[in-house]
Amino acid sequence: MGTCYYPEQWDFKLWRQDLKRMKACGITTVRIAEFAWNKIEPRENEFNFDFFDCFLDIAEEEQIKVIFGTPTATPPAWLTKAYPEALNCRKDGVKFCHGMRRHYNYNSPKYQELSARIVERAASHYGKRACIIGWQIDNEINCEIDEFYSESDNLAFREFLKEKYEDIDCLNQAWGTVFWNQTYNQWDEINLPGITIQNTSNPHQLLDYIRFVSESAIGFCKMQSDIIRKYKKPEDFITTNGMFGNLDNHKMMDTCYDVYTYDSYPNFAYGIGRDALHSEDLNDRKWSFNLSQVRSICPHFGIMEQQSGAGGWNTFAGPAPKPGQMLLWAMQSIAHGADYISFFRWRTATAGTEIYWHGILDYDNRDNRRLTEVAETGRRMKNISEAVGSDFEAQVALLRDYDNSWDSQIDLWHGEILHKSELEIFKASQLTHTPMDIVYLLNDTETQELRQYQVLFYPHPEIVTPEAAEVLKEYVKDGGCLILGCRAGQKQKDGQCVMEPMPGLLSALTGTSVKEYTYVGPADEEVQFEWDGKKLSAGIFNDILEQVSSESVVLGSYTGNYYAGSPAFIKNTYGKGTVLHFGGTFTEETVREILQFTGIREPYKNYMILPDGCELCVRKKDSCLYFFVLNYGRVSQEIELKKTLYDMETKENLTGTVVIEPYGVAVYRTSLE
Amino acid sequence: MGTCYYPEQWDFKLWRQDLKRMKACGITTVRIAEFAWNKIEPRENEFNFDFFDCFLDIAEEEQIKVIFGTPTATPPAWLTKAYPEALNCRKDGVKFCHGMRRHYNYNSPKYQELSARIVERAASHYGKRACIIGWQIDNEINCEIDEFYSESDNLAFREFLKEKYEDIDCLNQAWGTVFWNQTYNQWDEINLPGITIQNTSNPHQLLDYIRFVSESAIGFCKMQSDIIRKYKKPEDFITTNGMFGNLDNHKMMDTCYDVYTYDSYPNFAYGIGRDALHSEDLNDRKWSFNLSQVRSICPHFGIMEQQSGAGGWNTFAGPAPKPGQMLLWAMQSIAHGADYISFFRWRTATAGTEIYWHGILDYDNRDNRRLTEVAETGRRMKNISEAVGSDFEAQVALLRDYDNSWDSQIDLWHGEILHKSELEIFKASQLTHTPMDIVYLLNDTETQELRQYQVLFYPHPEIVTPEAAEVLKEYVKDGGCLILGCRAGQKQKDGQCVMEPMPGLLSALTGTSVKEYTYVGPADEEVQFEWDGKKLSAGIFNDILEQVSSESVVLGSYTGNYYAGSPAFIKNTYGKGTVLHFGGTFTEETVREILQFTGIREPYKNYMILPDGCELCVRKKDSCLYFFVLNYGRVSQEIELKKTLYDMETKENLTGTVVIEPYGVAVYRTSLE
Amino acid sequence: MGTCYYPEQWDFKLWRQDLKRMKACGITTVRIAEFAWNKIEPRENEFNFDFFDCFLDIAEEEQIKVIFGTPTATPPAWLTKAYPEALNCRKDGVKFCHGMRRHYNYNSPKYQELSARIVERAASHYGKRACIIGWQIDNEINCEIDEFYSESDNLAFREFLKEKYEDIDCLNQAWGTVFWNQTYNQWDEINLPGITIQNTSNPHQLLDYIRFVSESAIGFCKMQSDIIRKYKKPEDFITTNGMFGNLDNHKMMDTCYDVYTYDSYPNFAYGIGRDALHSEDLNDRKWSFNLSQVRSICPHFGIMEQQSGAGGWNTFAGPAPKPGQMLLWAMQSIAHGADYISFFRWRTATAGTEIYWHGILDYDNRDNRRLTEVAETGRRMKNISEAVGSDFEAQVALLRDYDNSWDSQIDLWHGEILHKSELEIFKASQLTHTPMDIVYLLNDTETQELRQYQVLFYPHPEIVTPEAAEVLKEYVKDGGCLILGCRAGQKQKDGQCVMEPMPGLLSALTGTSVKEYTYVGPADEEVQFEWDGKKLSAGIFNDILEQVSSESVVLGSYTGNYYAGSPAFIKNTYGKGTVLHFGGTFTEETVREILQFTGIREPYKNYMILPDGCELCVRKKDSCLYFFVLNYGRVSQEIELKKTLYDMETKENLTGTVVIEPYGVAVYRTSLE
Repeated sequence: MGTCYYPEQWDFKLWRQDLKRMKACGITTVRIAEFAWNKIEPRENEFNFDFFDCFLDIAEEEQIKVIFGTPTATPPAWLTKAYPEALNCRKDGVKFCHGMRRHYNYNSPKYQELSARIVERAASHYGKRACIIGWQIDNEINCEIDEFYSESDNLAFREFLKEKYEDIDCLNQAWGTVFWNQTYNQWDEINLPGITIQNTSNPHQLLDYIRFVSESAIGFCKMQSDIIRKYKKPEDFITTNGMFGNLDNHKMMDTCYDVYTYDSYPNFAYGIGRDALHSEDLNDRKWSFNLSQVRSICPHFGIMEQQSGAGGWNTFAGPAPKPGQMLLWAMQSIAHGADYISFFRWRTATAGTEIYWHGILDYDNRDNRRLTEVAETGRRMKNISEAVGSDFEAQVALLRDYDNSWDSQIDLWHGEILHKSELEIFKASQLTHTPMDIVYLLNDTETQELRQYQVLFYPHPEIVTPEAAEVLKEYVKDGGCLILGCRAGQKQKDGQCVMEPMPGLLSALTGTSVKEYTYVGPADEEVQFEWDGKKLSAGIFNDILEQVSSESVVLGSYTGNYYAGSPAFIKNTYGKGTVLHFGGTFTEETVREILQFTGIREPYKNYMILPDGCELCVRKKDSCLYFFVLNYGRVSQEIELKKTLYDMETKENLTGTVVIEPYGVAVYRTSLE
Repeated sequence: MGTCYYPEQWDFKLWRQDLKRMKACGITTVRIAEFAWNKIEPRENEFNFDFFDCFLDIAEEEQIKVIFGTPTATPPAWLTKAYPEALNCRKDGVKFCHGMRRHYNYNSPKYQELSARIVERAASHYGKRACIIGWQIDNEINCEIDEFYSESDNLAFREFLKEKYEDIDCLNQAWGTVFWNQTYNQWDEINLPGITIQNTSNPHQLLDYIRFVSESAIGFCKMQSDIIRKYKKPEDFITTNGMFGNLDNHKMMDTCYDVYTYDSYPNFAYGIGRDALHSEDLNDRKWSFNLSQVRSICPHFGIMEQQSGAGGWNTFAGPAPKPGQMLLWAMQSIAHGADYISFFRWRTATAGTEIYWHGILDYDNRDNRRLTEVAETGRRMKNISEAVGSDFEAQVALLRDYDNSWDSQIDLWHGEILHKSELEIFKASQLTHTPMDIVYLLNDTETQELRQYQVLFYPHPEIVTPEAAEVLKEYVKDGGCLILGCRAGQKQKDGQCVMEPMPGLLSALTGTSVKEYTYVGPADEEVQFEWDGKKLSAGIFNDILEQVSSESVVLGSYTGNYYAGSPAFIKNTYGKGTVLHFGGTFTEETVREILQFTGIREPYKNYMILPDGCELCVRKKDSCLYFFVLNYGRVSQEIELKKTLYDMETKENLTGTVVIEPYGVAVYRTSLE
Repeated sequence: MGTCYYPEQWDFKLWRQDLKRMKACGITTVRIAEFAWNKIEPRENEFNFDFFDCFLDIAEEEQIKVIFGTPTATPPAWLTKAYPEALNCRKDGVKFCHGMRRHYNYNSPKYQELSARIVERAASHYGKRACIIGWQIDNEINCEIDEFYSESDNLAFREFLKEKYEDIDCLNQAWGTVFWNQTYNQWDEINLPGITIQNTSNPHQLLDYIRFVSESAIGFCKMQSDIIRKYKKPEDFITTNGMFGNLDNHKMMDTCYDVYTYDSYPNFAYGIGRDALHSEDLNDRKWSFNLSQVRSICPHFGIMEQQSGAGGWNTFAGPAPKPGQMLLWAMQSIAHGADYISFFRWRTATAGTEIYWHGILDYDNRDNRRLTEVAETGRRMKNISEAVGSDFEAQVALLRDYDNSWDSQIDLWHGEILHKSELEIFKASQLTHTPMDIVYLLNDTETQELRQYQVLFYPHPEIVTPEAAEVLKEYVKDGGCLILGCRAGQKQKDGQCVMEPMPGLLSALTGTSVKEYTYVGPADEEVQFEWDGKKLSAGIFNDILEQVSSESVVLGSYTGNYYAGSPAFIKNTYGKGTVLHFGGTFTEETVREILQFTGIREPYKNYMILPDGCELCVRKKDSCLYFFVLNYGRVSQEIELKKTLYDMETKENLTGTVVIEPYGVAVYRTSLE
């Protein structure tokens, strides 16, 4: 268990006092230095290592382990004054200036040079320190802003495109520049997506732009990790923290890091501006969706920043976590695969923008109930320490890929349907206590990786590449069950629509053809489809299906709009497997039915019956199952244990009705016969 | 019947196949080339005509007629790279860049030169081709953006003002620059309306700015039409398409074109972001208002782009048209005066921003129900082909003028009242089945043109010029009935208020004086007026009237607010005619009563009785009346034919109750005895 | 009584006619020239005084007194063309241009030079004119925009900081630049708060920035008043008008002026965009809050612009004042301390942005009901003229200071709680007819100034300086009652939080400590506290209190959320006085109870009983009390006089039930035995 610590001023006494208090409540590790450029290089090319040398001395004396951050997230004032080309820009070219963080761009050669130098100096100086156990590169890559418009980015974008397309005619083809006469003759006619009328740019250019941003970020981090690897102790790890947009986090992980850490702030769900009472996304429990994504990047991850107080800047804020919520949210992270928890931050900052991003301690530095809760969390974690390294168990997965996620940012229809369906699939899995993984279909994903799942939801893969189609075919052929929604197979990798019937490359698999499609507009009545006597919503977009295979069976038909009676839901048999092609977008209710139909709903109902308000996560190690039951509500919940299970906290064997307190967590163990 | 076609790539086989399929469903004409600069001049001053030569060869072989567009709406990348002064700018000076269309400005001398050259080359090369029947200049002039802030525009604005005012003191007088010390000593101190605190500029400057934009656009189009006239075949027409803001479309028509074409997309009414179920503007039927405006520009117009699928960009969208709606909307165009219909577009674009602007065919290029509906539309059009050239019939007109329309964009009160009243007048005419024209009071409008209308609604002419006052006096003197609402006669042509009692220049005509006036604020109760025992809403703004003529009669008085009991509605006799001066803004109910009072409501009730859900349009040719009955609803409607009428589709004589199907259209003919 | 007059064009006849009409209705004074730079210096360094010489001649002939304005609010076009550095800029550096007013910046040396020159020329030329009685500097300082981003401001900001901090390390300390590595090494690395990601800047920098803006404005005005003092007649006063943000109006008054005048436009409350029917701020009566602030700056102030018609620009507007409202609002000003009323403006402008900012007369220049109401106001004012110079009476005051007001603009929590509590305290004082002052705690405020109040509400002083703590201690020690809400004592003057328990420097006074605190989030149920058997709302933020003094008594405890049972409201005895420390934010109901508890509620209930709809103000002079009763409603109200009072309008002695007409005002006098 760790925390994030900001020494800030030379104050040995306070430092030592803080580290002692940490140890007393079970904290063994601190992360430091991730914004501290000036502490090491206060003026250009003047290096001074005393500050952290002193701190590390004390840490070693106090036996506290250290994760050391590189400071590149906050270039100093002397740097941006001397080299304004290091700054990121607003889309219209206005440079961002001091006052916030992450004001730099990844592609400035000068900034790359100065970043490389400070990382080299820091790693070479501190790399062998005994207390250091790992390195964090930069901080929250692509947080706050994930678009870049400096001239350095513009030049780098052209190089990225040259390398990708080689021939400018290929770029013109991929971007469909014949439309609206956007054809380019020379590479230097091409710019970043810029200021346009009605703020609308060529969508294929935008898709490549996102890929470019992702590559830029990864390249910047790889430059740093390559340097650190030269100097770190062999056993120390390299990581970064957070998980943000316009970034292929999987590739970043594989290219740069040893382990991935996430920053988990579920209290955003209750902040000012949110209507948590009427939200439809399960509020803080929605973070389980995020944690599932993190798990897909790195099955055994860490939490570098775990919420330990009210979050907020001077410009936004929320309430304090209720007693129990800090422990609950830490356990949520663990239930989903975290093997390390570090609370953000030790003490609340008394100055700066993050004045309301509360740490464990308040400004007044007194012991408080949150410190007690941290100690309690540490105690609870010890009781389940045998589960470290166990694997999250799921028979169903939500399939995602970066091409479609990014296209959904650019394409209104894609964005609406994908966002909606993924949320509903998540909710259905949560509320039926059917643990679910999120799996990414990457360039190197092999069918084998998918085989562990009986069922895959791939709700709206508009973009389907031949490689992806091949992997999916293999998966189904081998007995998998693939579930698709509307608009599958509509596009190719460049975001252009294919001139063939949907679902395009998947049609052999689905045994279907999309005859016509329509958005369900604001003036349309809800469209339903009938399946096995039940009427279910067909969602916000409808593909009107046709059968094109003799193996296919119509499971459900639309009951409304002008296509009433047309097939809405078709099952196809392919090899040993099954494909369910649904013409609509998914709702929680539809997904519940599909989980039932595919026989994977509530797989642990022989162990326990849970109410809606509790999440169930299951981790497995050797022949043991660990059941995590998390109550997100402000009232207690009753669960029904159908078998005798071992409560790892009370160390009792339990059966029958058990009460989970408000914001409470129980962890049960059972042995698999 | 036509369509818009985009050859895009050399693909003779596809082109020929497409043209054959068009012919098979009744399409005889295609529009091409309106964005295709690079297809003719791929590099500066390198011309190559092969692409369209080939296409026109095939068109001639397939006997398809062609409307050829000039490509100036989309300057190429090589052009804007070499001559960035061709670009339009954001108000703060940031240049618009590639990624959208219409990124140019009308006033750059360089862009004018290059535009003139490509138009000259295209017209001289293709002008004598047999298949060509007409020319479209540019595309949707002033669409997407109708404000221009490049330095070329700034310089041109000064020239425009010098020419208009000659003496800078006249400009100072017209702009009221003495207010807030905005006086100009030199022409070069004057700029386009720029970035100001709270985004508020001198309103008289803004009014001249809009006039300047309009003149700039017209000048740019006239430059092109003058060139084309030198090369085109004598029988070929020149036109443009659409109808957009900050543009005197009447003057543009008279100065540049032979015929006007409009782009009709009624499905916008059902798009994302609209609340069509609760809208108060009749949704797609509101396009009849637009079509009436087009008719005022050109009584027998064309539709260059008629909706043939779901509309949308990657950034906005809507549902597919329901079966029947495409035909309905095409017939709506015809009922209002269109003698040519061209569907946009043949096939949906697979790439680019307009990826969701659906054509007749989907991406998959298969035959579909929309293609069938196009063919059906063609068949129906043939059955009514004898009505081509017939005139729209109306006894009442809504009077408009550009000065007031533009002032209403600048002036909040003017904008609110004019928008509201025009909509309500439109709705009352629609729902009472009283066909209405829209007529523009232009510089050269003569009284004679107005005489064909028994009644003219001129709801809120804040600006009244002496010339306009004269025309209106003549109209009333000769027996016309003029209806005015609040704030009439408040301003002069420069947008300044007159220092005399309202309605100013119209007071002799109205026999009234406005004692006081007030906006009806958000905390005020609805104000009513009583007229002949009925209480009607006085709307959102109230002029408190006084009689100043012995001929005047108070018809109604306010019943609320602090002016209860004061005259609200005064009738004056002037010459052989009548003026009704209403102190409020119009509501549908008030207009219904006025139509009744003036004896022109429901003029065809001896022919048929219609429910609210159906629009009635009447066209006349020789001694025949053609009744178009259009059902905009999703349920069928019953109409009652009071006389025997000839159904031009079924070729039967009908009387009594007839059912109009959902989205159905009937056309009846009768002979005038 | 006066008005604002705009001669605009040479028109002796109109001027004379206007002045005669003014006199006829009791207007004796006009303000002129505040935007008229070009009338005096039409070209750079060409001065011509004829225009106002002529006007002043006529004014003297007509015996109208004149307040003369300096024209620096609207630099001429010739000036900004020649010296663009005089312009203010948008935050991103785009210069504001002509079209509005106040487009200049205070810190341009060139603009300061030219401003000084025209003020010198105007004051030296007109200074001795007999009709002139006073000078207005500029116009509405910091109106429309109170942020400045020109390069001149940037340079001046650095100088301001150098002078304030001397050592850059002190600045780094005060701004907490160690956070996010914002440390500055050189002064020229520092800039104005600029364009940042997510528009968030260092909050301590922002606080200094506001102080800088305030100092800049005051310096600019002082430069002018120093010049005018050299030339004006000794008896003439110097003032400015309005009261706007980012400005220490008290310091500006003390530094530059002899008297303060305010611009009062209560009809904003009923304008477009406001929902006056459902507002919670008492609408036009809310202006009494503003007037109380003005009174704190200058106890006997003037109104330079009193609303006399519908307000509005071409871009926003509202209804006309109802008959009676103009008189009501003028009397509201007088009741709160105004001894001079000038109506804005004589006649409505026929041109320019303020075309809908109606004057007494409409464009048509006819006599109207508003002119009649002005005359009536003058007549009523004569009847109460003996009250001129009387003092506003209050036993309770709301305490404010600039540090906290400005911090509340930067800090979301601070802004929400302070805005809410101040409004509720105001409402409770209004609705219980407990007249209240607003008092500012300034650098030079002495305890003595506070002693006149039995009770002080200082709801949320997050920033507490040692000096302020000392003054408050003295106040309480001497017997005062101080009431504090949540978050008191959280910060120091630079906006940084203190590392000690709240209420920090006030804890000795309160006998309390804040154990923990939380925002009451959108998903939380309302939290209440129980006090003496009553359950009252604890508002939107809760400090959980602890007693730390044996003198303290818990008055109330929370009944909900996780801190139910904890102290919410603690009373401490300190010296002869009392401190009430409330952990929540104030609601009207809570304040009503506190007013009752402290024994100061409804202090004049022995004189009269009033309904909620009427405001009561009391002014005192010698041994006379003047009661102003103002009815803001559209229906009449009954009041009950418990003693016999002299009605200064009817000149009758009244007792018992009296009816106050809609928008009516009564003024009663009584003698104190």
